Amino acid sequence: ARPRVGYFYSGKKPVQSVADSMIGMKVRDFQSIPVVVAEHVSVYDAICHMFLEDVGTLFVVDESLHLTGVLSRKDLLRTSIGNTDLDKIPVHVIMTRMPNITYCEKQDTLLQVAKKLMNKQIDSLPVVHDSGNGLEVVGRMTKTNITAAFISLADDHEL
Amino acid sequence: ARPRVGYFYSGKKPVQSVADSMIGMKVRDFQSIPVVVAEHVSVYDAICHMFLEDVGTLFVVDESLHLTGVLSRKDLLRTSIGNTDLDKIPVHVIMTRMPNITYCEKQDTLLQVAKKLMNKQIDSLPVVHDSGNGLEVVGRMTKTNITAAFISLADDHEL
Repeated sequence: ARPRVGYFYSGKKPVQSVADSMIGMKVRDFQSIPVVVAEHVSVYDAICHMFLEDVGTLFVVDESLHLTGVLSRKDLLRTSIGNTDLDKIPVHVIMTRMPNITYCEKQDTLLQVAKKLMNKQIDSLPVVHDSGNGLEVVGRMTKTNITAAFISLADDHEL
Repeated sequence: ARPRVGYFYSGKKPVQSVADSMIGMKVRDFQSIPVVVAEHVSVYDAICHMFLEDVGTLFVVDESLHLTGVLSRKDLLRTSIGNTDLDKIPVHVIMTRMPNITYCEKQDTLLQVAKKLMNKQIDSLPVVHDSGNGLEVVGRMTKTNITAAFISLADDHEL
């Protein structure tokens, strides 16, 4: 169960209004675990990894584990049709690269994330921590997390 | 702009509370247009259709245009790796079939849909109308629609 921060539970109803709860929802309380692959991994292995981990997006990192790319199920499907040598194409050839990656941070609100997902028409954002030398991938925010938050908002307020 | 049903707009703020707005959100106000293919269409053509229409799920219909199956991006990716004759495999071989399809109707609430999407771990539900002889596909509800609803809830209440 995720930590219920932002209000004290006082018997039957939360103290906060639904509006206040909604504004207070943060990435750190709803994010998923990120799944990363190295840049030299083949498209074939990336697809297998995506199925094994059951995620819709993989994040690509360099040797220092800093974010360099993003691979969506759509990117992998596009490459897999008509290509018979998926084991010979490294993911860095087909991934979306920095600086074209949209990301978020732990302290961002879910509303900010939801707007980024809709405006950029993407399914997932990496949650990053800027180490000074690069962006460390610390989480994953998807439309699934927003859907879970939508339900939890209703549940917390007994709607 | 979608019709703002359920309250009257009275100057700056809606009359309803966020909670009441949330409970009142219905499929018919947030659904997307469904994209359908026939059962005999090849996996290759289905993948092309999915990219052309830019959707994550295709619904499969019979000659009477009744729902018989669902194809996700994940189903198509699974089939496309290691298969060189995608143009020879009809979608009815790989699709999820009735009665294993989870669906919803226009008058259902978004909360009901969100819970179905999370419980079944799927990205999309067909919105159907039961014609008596079968289920007509009249819409599509996805986690993208729930994310849009989450934002619209905040926007409508100026959060």
